[in-house]
Amino acid sequence: MSRWLTLVASSLMLLSAAGHAGFEPFQPLPAQPPIPSDNPQTPAKIALGKQLYFDKRLSATYTVSCNACHNVMSAGDDGKAVSRGALGMQGTRSAPTLYNVAYQTVYFWDGRAVSLEAAIKEHLISPTEMGMKDASAVVERIWATGDYKQVFANAFGAGVALSYDTITQALAAYIRTLRTPDSDFDRYLRGDEKAISRQAKRGYEAFIEVGCASCHFWVNLSGPVPGLAFEMGEGFYELFPNYPNTKDEARYRLADDIGRYNVTKDETDRRMWRVPVLRNVALTAPYFHNGSVKTLEEAIRVMGATQLNKRLTRDQIADIAAFLHTVSGRFPTHRFPKLPVD
Amino acid sequence: MSRWLTLVASSLMLLSAAGHAGFEPFQPLPAQPPIPSDNPQTPAKIALGKQLYFDKRLSATYTVSCNACHNVMSAGDDGKAVSRGALGMQGTRSAPTLYNVAYQTVYFWDGRAVSLEAAIKEHLISPTEMGMKDASAVVERIWATGDYKQVFANAFGAGVALSYDTITQALAAYIRTLRTPDSDFDRYLRGDEKAISRQAKRGYEAFIEVGCASCHFWVNLSGPVPGLAFEMGEGFYELFPNYPNTKDEARYRLADDIGRYNVTKDETDRRMWRVPVLRNVALTAPYFHNGSVKTLEEAIRVMGATQLNKRLTRDQIADIAAFLHTVSGRFPTHRFPKLPVD
Repeated sequence: MSRWLTLVASSLMLLSAAGHAGFEPFQPLPAQPPIPSDNPQTPAKIALGKQLYFDKRLSATYTVSCNACHNVMSAGDDGKAVSRGALGMQGTRSAPTLYNVAYQTVYFWDGRAVSLEAAIKEHLISPTEMGMKDASAVVERIWATGDYKQVFANAFGAGVALSYDTITQALAAYIRTLRTPDSDFDRYLRGDEKAISRQAKRGYEAFIEVGCASCHFWVNLSGPVPGLAFEMGEGFYELFPNYPNTKDEARYRLADDIGRYNVTKDETDRRMWRVPVLRNVALTAPYFHNGSVKTLEEAIRVMGATQLNKRLTRDQIADIAAFLHTVSGRFPTHRFPKLPVD
Repeated sequence: MSRWLTLVASSLMLLSAAGHAGFEPFQPLPAQPPIPSDNPQTPAKIALGKQLYFDKRLSATYTVSCNACHNVMSAGDDGKAVSRGALGMQGTRSAPTLYNVAYQTVYFWDGRAVSLEAAIKEHLISPTEMGMKDASAVVERIWATGDYKQVFANAFGAGVALSYDTITQALAAYIRTLRTPDSDFDRYLRGDEKAISRQAKRGYEAFIEVGCASCHFWVNLSGPVPGLAFEMGEGFYELFPNYPNTKDEARYRLADDIGRYNVTKDETDRRMWRVPVLRNVALTAPYFHNGSVKTLEEAIRVMGATQLNKRLTRDQIADIAAFLHTVSGRFPTHRFPKLPVD
């Protein structure tokens, strides 16, 4: 991480010193997200992925679709602290919005999936999520739905098998279309000085000055993005809580989950977490990996205390919240897919 | 019913005798369904109703929307024999498609709701469906979601209260837009002789000759429609099974549920049922009030046996199935609503 912290620190100094000159720690959402070379976007594949995204056949009990917890008609999440999967079991971490995940380098709160495709594969067979028994069960479920055979042939070519790989590739292709460009902040970054309020501008400055932007920078306000120095699969992690044993840590049980340590069993990864995306954060309460904090203002206050050891003032919190409201983007108005009928 | 059976019988004779001359027992789906004078369709109200239709806030546990069992991305139903509601309890009757229900005169399998609005009110507080405690709980739930207050004001006018009535009116307005016009059969009825196959034409003739059309006629192939002699709230009911104590009745437990008797406690209503809509029937398996029959062909065979005391031949069944495939219509491709965020 150190090369990054150094780079970011100098960048932020640059920003303070020279305004928008030089390296830009914040950037509008690029028109195209990075697309893996082995899963190019095609209209037929995206259309198939959209069908699968809304199809409850992908869950063990035929009761849950991807959209159940990642509701694209809402802000891409379900507004719950933690979600309940097809088998009735609750997960332990809050379902994040799927909007703009195409710009991430790693997936899950602990970054254990090195691609969107890998993350989807785990979601489908997780007992607390879609609950399918295994990859074969997923393939058999979709194979049993006659119409999908033709749709898969259209999307991948007649010679390519309907497989766990192609199912997840199609889902990933659809999910990569879930973008929210043209936030007020994006327009501000493009030079429209009136796109955000004076309070939001104060909040933007505070966001940098108090230290939020040390981790929450660049395209998704979540650190490096693929193609911009970080490669897909390379995660940007931070310790949370950074200042341990606070009242807030106890109150919100922030240290109960030891994060990335569960993945690597490396002591240096204890309570390390992927820096989460802040785009649309004002729309995606509740907050943190365990969904324990209900309001944006409280989340900002707690972050100040646990990450920066700072007691933010009421005004600072209000200003930063006003800024974070400006990173809510323009949501797409997709058409419903038509699902195959048995 | 007798005036209807007489009318229908003579109509069918007319049809046989004179082709398409005179009274038409079958009609293409009218461009506009009947709209109650106290709930006119407006774009703002329909848009609100669409939001509510997909909003899980309308269920006790925040887990189920109207769309869960009446999936407009599928054929308007959920493909299940019976469905499980927000509280985890299963109903006893199969969720029908909501497409084209605007043309019905009564609602529920037993016709106990005399308007779509009345049916929705019951759905919301039914323990096996949305599971809300009572009408007040529904209103409070929506009232607690800030954005809806403004959306309701836009839809109904600032002076009209957000109430159980306006919630159900908005839902009904959206559901009335769920129509599937331009089926192959509709185009055939309009004069396009090539719109349906020769087998489907044989099936159409058999459908009339063996007696299916005695009940399954007119716009929705479900008997009289509002404005066409029947008024809203006046149901068209038939005995099912009509010929009791068959093997099929036992096998599929067709007589366990005593239908409309539960509503009226009138002995003449024992095992009387609303004649169900056949539009899109090929897409809405499984069949009958209890969802006990899995295939269209078997449903046709059983209907022949239990309703007409006829053993249909394999060819007749195949022909009638081919005809019934032609009443699958053109499904709308709606855009997703954007749901309010808490």
